[in-house]
Amino acid sequence: MESEKYRLLSDIHSPSDLKKIDDRDLDELCTEIRNKLIETVSSNGGHLASNLGTVELTVALHKTFNAPDDTIIWDVGHQAYTHKLLTGRFDSFDTLRKEGGLSGFVRPDESIYDSFYEGHAGTSVSQASGVAVANKLKGNSDYAVAVIGDGSFGNGMVYEALNSPSNKGCRLIVILNDNEMSINENVGTVARHLAQIRAKPEYYRFKAKTEKALNYIPFIGKYLSAFLFKVKTELKSLIYKSSFFEDFGFRYIGPIDGHDISTLCEAMNSAKMVNGPVLLHVNTVKGRGYDFAENSPEIFHGISEFNVDTGIADSHGTDYSHEFCKCLEEFAEKDKRICAVTAAMSIGTGLDEFFKKFPKRSFDVGIAEEHALTFCSGLAENGMIPVFAVYSTFFQRCIDQLIHDGALQRRKMIIAVDRAGFVGEDGETHQGMFDVPLLQSIPNLTVYSPASYNELSNCLYRALYKDSNVVVIRYPRGRLPESQLDYEFSGDSVTIGNTEADTAIVTYGRLFFEALEAKQILADKGIDIRIIKLLSIKPINNEALSSAYDSKNVVFFEEGVKTGGTGEVFGSQLIENGFKGRFILHAVENGFVPHASVNSLLKKYKFDSESMAELIIKEFNDER
Amino acid sequence: MESEKYRLLSDIHSPSDLKKIDDRDLDELCTEIRNKLIETVSSNGGHLASNLGTVELTVALHKTFNAPDDTIIWDVGHQAYTHKLLTGRFDSFDTLRKEGGLSGFVRPDESIYDSFYEGHAGTSVSQASGVAVANKLKGNSDYAVAVIGDGSFGNGMVYEALNSPSNKGCRLIVILNDNEMSINENVGTVARHLAQIRAKPEYYRFKAKTEKALNYIPFIGKYLSAFLFKVKTELKSLIYKSSFFEDFGFRYIGPIDGHDISTLCEAMNSAKMVNGPVLLHVNTVKGRGYDFAENSPEIFHGISEFNVDTGIADSHGTDYSHEFCKCLEEFAEKDKRICAVTAAMSIGTGLDEFFKKFPKRSFDVGIAEEHALTFCSGLAENGMIPVFAVYSTFFQRCIDQLIHDGALQRRKMIIAVDRAGFVGEDGETHQGMFDVPLLQSIPNLTVYSPASYNELSNCLYRALYKDSNVVVIRYPRGRLPESQLDYEFSGDSVTIGNTEADTAIVTYGRLFFEALEAKQILADKGIDIRIIKLLSIKPINNEALSSAYDSKNVVFFEEGVKTGGTGEVFGSQLIENGFKGRFILHAVENGFVPHASVNSLLKKYKFDSESMAELIIKEFNDER
Repeated sequence: MESEKYRLLSDIHSPSDLKKIDDRDLDELCTEIRNKLIETVSSNGGHLASNLGTVELTVALHKTFNAPDDTIIWDVGHQAYTHKLLTGRFDSFDTLRKEGGLSGFVRPDESIYDSFYEGHAGTSVSQASGVAVANKLKGNSDYAVAVIGDGSFGNGMVYEALNSPSNKGCRLIVILNDNEMSINENVGTVARHLAQIRAKPEYYRFKAKTEKALNYIPFIGKYLSAFLFKVKTELKSLIYKSSFFEDFGFRYIGPIDGHDISTLCEAMNSAKMVNGPVLLHVNTVKGRGYDFAENSPEIFHGISEFNVDTGIADSHGTDYSHEFCKCLEEFAEKDKRICAVTAAMSIGTGLDEFFKKFPKRSFDVGIAEEHALTFCSGLAENGMIPVFAVYSTFFQRCIDQLIHDGALQRRKMIIAVDRAGFVGEDGETHQGMFDVPLLQSIPNLTVYSPASYNELSNCLYRALYKDSNVVVIRYPRGRLPESQLDYEFSGDSVTIGNTEADTAIVTYGRLFFEALEAKQILADKGIDIRIIKLLSIKPINNEALSSAYDSKNVVFFEEGVKTGGTGEVFGSQLIENGFKGRFILHAVENGFVPHASVNSLLKKYKFDSESMAELIIKEFNDER
Repeated sequence: MESEKYRLLSDIHSPSDLKKIDDRDLDELCTEIRNKLIETVSSNGGHLASNLGTVELTVALHKTFNAPDDTIIWDVGHQAYTHKLLTGRFDSFDTLRKEGGLSGFVRPDESIYDSFYEGHAGTSVSQASGVAVANKLKGNSDYAVAVIGDGSFGNGMVYEALNSPSNKGCRLIVILNDNEMSINENVGTVARHLAQIRAKPEYYRFKAKTEKALNYIPFIGKYLSAFLFKVKTELKSLIYKSSFFEDFGFRYIGPIDGHDISTLCEAMNSAKMVNGPVLLHVNTVKGRGYDFAENSPEIFHGISEFNVDTGIADSHGTDYSHEFCKCLEEFAEKDKRICAVTAAMSIGTGLDEFFKKFPKRSFDVGIAEEHALTFCSGLAENGMIPVFAVYSTFFQRCIDQLIHDGALQRRKMIIAVDRAGFVGEDGETHQGMFDVPLLQSIPNLTVYSPASYNELSNCLYRALYKDSNVVVIRYPRGRLPESQLDYEFSGDSVTIGNTEADTAIVTYGRLFFEALEAKQILADKGIDIRIIKLLSIKPINNEALSSAYDSKNVVFFEEGVKTGGTGEVFGSQLIENGFKGRFILHAVENGFVPHASVNSLLKKYKFDSESMAELIIKEFNDER
């Protein structure tokens, strides 16, 4: 059945199998690939639109280049599903994004055809540049090829990498996969420039013809009039410099139809002939071949399970992101100083509604977290209150800017760190494991980690109108746990339960609900504990510390990396104050957490209520 | 005397005083400013070449713009001495870089004319963009002006900021101070592009004339031949697109002679007339007006005290940086895989000799730490062993890259973190306070903090040939303390002194020598302590932990920020293991440490041997 449905695809176990396929069969192969993509993503969730757009591009790459000797690098890595299918992972493709299965991104531990872990934008040109320089040093003739979307092109790293003088004379090919949108709509000047190029193919024909014509003007030494010579050289200079990319010393080829395999192969072979860095500009259509995705590529960028016939995914109602933004909109209605800033994540962070309501105070700077943060510092210096919503993992990009332009300047600004903690199926490169330890060391910051929607809104109010300096509000991906016990919390850190109980759980964020359940489980077994819940994790409330100090046993649960996290700050403060009881810190030992559902990760890392209760019984109540 | 020597300058207390000065006196004013700069830097140390280059530029800025309503922003901030002299800081200028005196950088707490703390490169355009957007939102007509050197232009943040769509219609002026060198020689394509512009003023005259001529071609509707129209529009498009900066939507004005005040004022006034973002390209000469500095601007970039007549600064012999690089050169002699990478700091990090000896394996990527780290990952993926030498404070720029492209990928690469700990006179933006807490949370890393040159070389050997994955070797600015006691250390963490002593000092890096002296001071008073010295601060050696566990009192000294640092990791591990003794963690509470000499900071923050001994007497031996 499977082999019939995927007649050609199921026989491809490596790029060399692909190379054997007759050119006349390639269209059918692409159809099979698209079917497999739609089938798999509709049942597993994942990135669809970008993968449908890169089918032909990937086929052409593996036909033209010789991986893994030639290194093919996928920027961000969410568009590499076809690459997976063509490099021996067809049989396991059903496990995509499932625990223990294939990753939704590129991973070297999955295949020799994956050379780098990918997940963050803008790294591919630097990676490829390093590989290409090493090839040159070793004297071999392999190519390094970076495939990068137009969205990633707004990232400063790409500019730094294009700008690097060591690229000269290297077999470095950058393929700009120009699909007219990154994750949201395009922003920025590079995007405008690309739009202009797309609008004017004749521009390039004109360029080629003029160049050719100019070469026909004979150089006749002193007989050539000075004027003519000047016009020739200056026009040539104008023309050679006319492409943004050629300013960087890259030979420009394009734009090429990214859905025409033979043209793609031809262009790639031309690129291989150039003795130096090449930028190959390819136009593709996101969602190509599946109408629903082609018409709404932003919805089908990253999507959960959906019905193939209707294109409709399960609606999951509100979540932390939307609750935060709803609340922000209410404040912005009255307070004209409030601005919202995103780095190409207005939909993911829920800011899209704000952007519609307050377009003048809304700023999507593209995938440019560094600029975003310092831009906020500029807005704040001049009386605005910027709110920068950013995923925990991408926030890692602007730590220096937070130190230099946020904390040191004591700016009044708010950073909404979304996707803090486990994010689930996106895996290692996307888990929000590091924001807390990165934040803990920076002075002049307040960091809130609310548990409920109410608290989230309360924290925003405090950040806007009570606190000074930079305030960070961090919250997890997804919804409030359904299992939450009936509980209304307000104010700072508090102790819940019998304050005389020997054992205290200290925790914050969504783990608080697990702790509440654990308390109930233990109570059912006759074990009485208290919970010390933190709202601000920096600074840590003194009452929380003294409540812990009065306990015999303290267990700190933290959904984030252990070293440098809040638990260690807490433990260290306890020991410095002479605490003589037992202290157990349960956090994530190694922050590189593989993909699996959030619930599964909470269980696997023993943060669920059952595991909490078990730990307490084992450590403190075994003798009972 | 002073008022005679500085007849004009001493009367300027604000930009409005400057505006009153007769144009004919401006040359004399500039001479006075230069004399003051040379006089002060020769006795206090500081940045000289860049400040001598921006005298006329600064005078023109404060004549043309209306600070502080117009916001003038200095990228990096080391070229703003003249700005200080013209904004009320002439009288206190002798205190430059002295403890409690004026900062060598821009600081808002020093003057209302300083709008941002500056110290890291590439932030100014983002800052100015934020200020300009806020001006637009508020409906006022103030300008935001960023002054940025060509070196900073290689930084990705600048590209992100130029590329930002919200700049449109803003009163944003970016002044590119093009002095043909950043800190070292120029690198990169933008630098090449600037060189081309400089080489061809006629190019711009041609451009202006052709543009004008094209405008004379009348638009005569359907009578205009299609061909002529095409040529006209396409040529216009070519010409408008001919400047790299105009690709970003900035109106380009330049290049302007940066030492001619009237031309500068004229150009700035033109820039003010443009209804949108402008890039004003100014050519300046580093070291202008002081021959020694003009001839050797790299030596006079940042310099310690020097003799004005000879231009010679005190030689201070070898230091940690040079010892590290000397050792690296020895290994590279035999091992062709070793590559050296710097982000425009080949002189500061001591890599310049390596660059001369092994040019093919040497990479100066410009001020582009993000690219540098990921480029190293690419080199490593392809069999090289890259060594990236970077100052602790600038290392903050590539934390995400270290996580994503270093640690997660388990690359074999070495990061030499120079200037770790107090750096002294450069102040808040340059102290190496945060590298340890930032590093502690990242998995798959080894972090060494050697104390002596011998250890430094030993750590490099281990990093190259014993350890796997990313290894960080961090070492302080400057020399091995002269006061070091006779001591040879090899191997991992060890305990020094009587292992039965009640009190243990735990420390690492250069504080070890202070601890040795403290031990001697205490011994002289009849108090016996032991020292537990760490070499690897991540992971922490088990023997060190168990030795501490056996002590009654543990005092951890750490020359870095407290929260998230090694001391907290250590304390937390002790408490988790049930340690019942006393634990004192003495580290830097707030990482923003003002400028002062390193020795003074060690005393002020109580890390000197006397303070260590005092603390131990006070806490544990008072009753004796």
